Amino acid sequence: MSGDEFHGVFPYLVSPIDAEGKVMEGVLGDLVDFVIDAGVHGLTPLGSTGEFAYLSWHQKKRLVQVVLDANRGRVPVVAGVAATTTEAACKQARDFADMGVDGIVAVLEAYFPVSEDGVVDYFASVARAVGDCPVVMYTNPNFQRSDLSIAAIERLADIPNIRYLKDASTNTGRLLTILNRVGDRLKVFAASSHIPVCVMQIGGAGWMAGPACLIPGQSVVLYEAARAGRWDAAMDLQRPLWRVNEVFARYSLAACVKGGLELMGFPVGAPLAPKAGLTEAGRADVAAVLQSMGVHLPAAP
Amino acid sequence: MSGDEFHGVFPYLVSPIDAEGKVMEGVLGDLVDFVIDAGVHGLTPLGSTGEFAYLSWHQKKRLVQVVLDANRGRVPVVAGVAATTTEAACKQARDFADMGVDGIVAVLEAYFPVSEDGVVDYFASVARAVGDCPVVMYTNPNFQRSDLSIAAIERLADIPNIRYLKDASTNTGRLLTILNRVGDRLKVFAASSHIPVCVMQIGGAGWMAGPACLIPGQSVVLYEAARAGRWDAAMDLQRPLWRVNEVFARYSLAACVKGGLELMGFPVGAPLAPKAGLTEAGRADVAAVLQSMGVHLPAAP
Amino acid sequence: MSGDEFHGVFPYLVSPIDAEGKVMEGVLGDLVDFVIDAGVHGLTPLGSTGEFAYLSWHQKKRLVQVVLDANRGRVPVVAGVAATTTEAACKQARDFADMGVDGIVAVLEAYFPVSEDGVVDYFASVARAVGDCPVVMYTNPNFQRSDLSIAAIERLADIPNIRYLKDASTNTGRLLTILNRVGDRLKVFAASSHIPVCVMQIGGAGWMAGPACLIPGQSVVLYEAARAGRWDAAMDLQRPLWRVNEVFARYSLAACVKGGLELMGFPVGAPLAPKAGLTEAGRADVAAVLQSMGVHLPAAP
Amino acid sequence: MSGDEFHGVFPYLVSPIDAEGKVMEGVLGDLVDFVIDAGVHGLTPLGSTGEFAYLSWHQKKRLVQVVLDANRGRVPVVAGVAATTTEAACKQARDFADMGVDGIVAVLEAYFPVSEDGVVDYFASVARAVGDCPVVMYTNPNFQRSDLSIAAIERLADIPNIRYLKDASTNTGRLLTILNRVGDRLKVFAASSHIPVCVMQIGGAGWMAGPACLIPGQSVVLYEAARAGRWDAAMDLQRPLWRVNEVFARYSLAACVKGGLELMGFPVGAPLAPKAGLTEAGRADVAAVLQSMGVHLPAAP
Repeated sequence: MSGDEFHGVFPYLVSPIDAEGKVMEGVLGDLVDFVIDAGVHGLTPLGSTGEFAYLSWHQKKRLVQVVLDANRGRVPVVAGVAATTTEAACKQARDFADMGVDGIVAVLEAYFPVSEDGVVDYFASVARAVGDCPVVMYTNPNFQRSDLSIAAIERLADIPNIRYLKDASTNTGRLLTILNRVGDRLKVFAASSHIPVCVMQIGGAGWMAGPACLIPGQSVVLYEAARAGRWDAAMDLQRPLWRVNEVFARYSLAACVKGGLELMGFPVGAPLAPKAGLTEAGRADVAAVLQSMGVHLPAAP
Repeated sequence: MSGDEFHGVFPYLVSPIDAEGKVMEGVLGDLVDFVIDAGVHGLTPLGSTGEFAYLSWHQKKRLVQVVLDANRGRVPVVAGVAATTTEAACKQARDFADMGVDGIVAVLEAYFPVSEDGVVDYFASVARAVGDCPVVMYTNPNFQRSDLSIAAIERLADIPNIRYLKDASTNTGRLLTILNRVGDRLKVFAASSHIPVCVMQIGGAGWMAGPACLIPGQSVVLYEAARAGRWDAAMDLQRPLWRVNEVFARYSLAACVKGGLELMGFPVGAPLAPKAGLTEAGRADVAAVLQSMGVHLPAAP
Repeated sequence: MSGDEFHGVFPYLVSPIDAEGKVMEGVLGDLVDFVIDAGVHGLTPLGSTGEFAYLSWHQKKRLVQVVLDANRGRVPVVAGVAATTTEAACKQARDFADMGVDGIVAVLEAYFPVSEDGVVDYFASVARAVGDCPVVMYTNPNFQRSDLSIAAIERLADIPNIRYLKDASTNTGRLLTILNRVGDRLKVFAASSHIPVCVMQIGGAGWMAGPACLIPGQSVVLYEAARAGRWDAAMDLQRPLWRVNEVFARYSLAACVKGGLELMGFPVGAPLAPKAGLTEAGRADVAAVLQSMGVHLPAAP
Repeated sequence: MSGDEFHGVFPYLVSPIDAEGKVMEGVLGDLVDFVIDAGVHGLTPLGSTGEFAYLSWHQKKRLVQVVLDANRGRVPVVAGVAATTTEAACKQARDFADMGVDGIVAVLEAYFPVSEDGVVDYFASVARAVGDCPVVMYTNPNFQRSDLSIAAIERLADIPNIRYLKDASTNTGRLLTILNRVGDRLKVFAASSHIPVCVMQIGGAGWMAGPACLIPGQSVVLYEAARAGRWDAAMDLQRPLWRVNEVFARYSLAACVKGGLELMGFPVGAPLAPKAGLTEAGRADVAAVLQSMGVHLPAAP
């Protein structure tokens, strides 16, 4: 699968963990089947929605293995790597590559600020650690204390296996700036904070996002319309679909996707404590927006 | 002119002030002719680019009068109203309406935070103060201490002469959320921080922005392509044009537009002290990007 | 009065404005008498608490004149100067000096960021504009978009009539850093966000603050204890007095001081719209804390 | 040791890690002896200065064990516990208690925001997990995404073994507010961002801070003067000592303390990558301030 370019809709998979801290393998496998059957183009375990910042290394490895096993090579699996030290990030990346992932999404976590040289060294080291395994750089100026400046991205774009960038800001203009500078070397994916049609129009490759766990089919239809240049049709699909993203911006990402999946009949559990699950009002909001998209909710109240 | 809907490209005019604090009427009139000849759809004196926060009330009135005189009714003139108190804003708005503007852009300045009820009351009072003169609400979460929440916008959209919203955030998704909620009652204009093609695609009415002082013709061509639904052609125009916005995001808005106009042969002077004009490097960057757009620079070094 | 050094407690006077926009001279004069009788060491009209950002130039001049007339030379009057342009600030300062104030507090308002050179030029120009009239520089990293860096303060401390600094951050360590650097040239006043005893202990000259309108006598007793080096006694006074500052941090400054004065029988009115007055709960909180300090509240509900 | 109250100077120990990721036991033991010989009142491994956010669980346990062994019961050892999930924090705390620490400092790390109930539950669960082992709650509004509100602190102060709070804001007034509310149940320690004399004067118990690794003796002398109520003498000691904190505010904490210790002859190495060590200029600044305090620097250039 790694010979192809990544493109299209990659749902950020949730991480279903039971009260003993064990990965709930059955429901995760069911979720993998559900989104692949709906036509998604890849899978991303251990993103923000996947609560990467709340899991032990043991849990992370198990989650990736379960996804790989359930996928059975049908679509590319791109696993999240996130650490505060260069050494830990390289080790995670190498282990995932050895397990057979098709790519990694690299996140730099930080407690103290890091200089631009430090940021570049972190991503470059991770890329070197996995040989020719494709790397997606993740940039999120809202949640990360040290982020990828445009200058850092330009330097990193020269590394052969750094081939993608995923941006979780709300600033779509920043994506066009990046594409204007390094669009010949990097493909760009959006997060749920960008309007997918706009990102496709400026030349994006697709989106990696939590909401696609809940509405994978509708996301794929939208992607195909945009990919074909049927912009007005795509926009007609986009308008109602954006309401899902609006609800997600209002509540916590992991709480929303886990709560929505519970309503749809996937017993994935609550976010890990001390995070809270959806409130009553949040459940009602998520249920309403999913039903407006035609989603069947067997477990709705 | 007020029977029509505002749409298209409205350059934010700079405010040329001489060393004695007088409005430089000749060059402002020349600038008005230049942008109208290039096809712009309206004029906006006293926006951010127009240094509204740095002018006396006497200067503001004179600037608006000079623009009205130079315009001679050719395009709508929409003047900026900005105050910290409701009373001062209402007085400004009434005076501009009496002078014959076709609309106002209302900004809430704040030193202390204001409650949502206070924000709603401010904009509603300004709208009432000008009868049926159309009002554009200005929202800028980055520069304003108190801003228009989505809930406040929904309440204000019911007021008949509040017919437009101009958003100067970088968050294009916020605009789609607003259009999803009140798109039947409000038209939306973008600022220079959004990608114009994307804003048009999601249903925007145009843009009010400083860079359109410098590249009015190119902006109009882009607008017409988007308006006609020729999205791929529009995007081909958008890509190089975005470089202008990139330079503007790097330097101060007023310094960039005034500096660029000086290079183009409009002696509009420097921003008001203690703001600084463009540095040497900034002048070179602005010159380079304007030349890449085919702009003639008789005063370039 | 200008031969002496400013020191001690300077209440930030509120600005009582009636529905027609007129200064309410009677109550302002009564307030001046009240705080002087209680022993305060100076008066500061047009501070934050005085809603400087919400007043017309006409209102500002009238407020300062009423304070000067009511004061009758008893204590120094130090008036607030605040503008976005250097030119407007210099004009305000000159006019106040001509009216006979004993000093000015200079604030830099900003919409766009200003370079350090621009900041220095602003304050230096204001100081030059008023000859030998003493200048207090005001620094507030929380409310001002451009602030005085330590390096800028060091440069400005060399100007002879810039003799004081007032800091409205919450960071008392910053004050000690400033005193370590320029304590031989500048005296430092605190705002209500610092603990007065701590500021006195590190070498401060006193405080300019809104709460001193409401508890001037208690503030003076605290100041005298600290000035005499009776630190443990000062701390015993400080502990209950700090509860007043806590309430002020919870509500808006102007709303609190105006609301508290109304409870005490000074009909100063509400903050200027769109700011709101105290809520019912806020009134109860302010009443409770004032009563705990022994303040008589004839107008309490 | 746990029968006594913690008080005085607790240096935040650095974490010396070699290129293979191993704890450098010799130099850490030497550092423990150095600060205890200088009279410090306790030891805190795994604070911010100790790079807690950059270490594996294996490294953390080893660091605490080395400190316990080197200490030989001379002073209380209070180890840092930090996690994003309640479960992981409880496990860390239990393990440290089993190893024999005298107390823990509990930090809540967060990626997504946490509700106040979630925050309270986190700290309460950690406290319950360690029985009667004393807990210091750590609050840092600048670095933590979810922080302890005053209301949360009041709720947590009722838990018997939550007996201390350490605040790393720069807002000393916040500490007095906390002491006014729960001073009968919680003792308060300051971080290096507060002026120690001021914190002692308002009723603080001491400070837990990185700079005390470098100037333990001077810190203890200052503490004893303040503890004895010799406030003017304490302030004379404080003034020069604050320059050390100023340098620390300018550079990264871990880089400063590790760099300073290297200059003093403790080969503790550099901060963990991608963080950088001190620059040449930083080394010169740290050397100058330490020499001004009379610190001997055998390894200075």
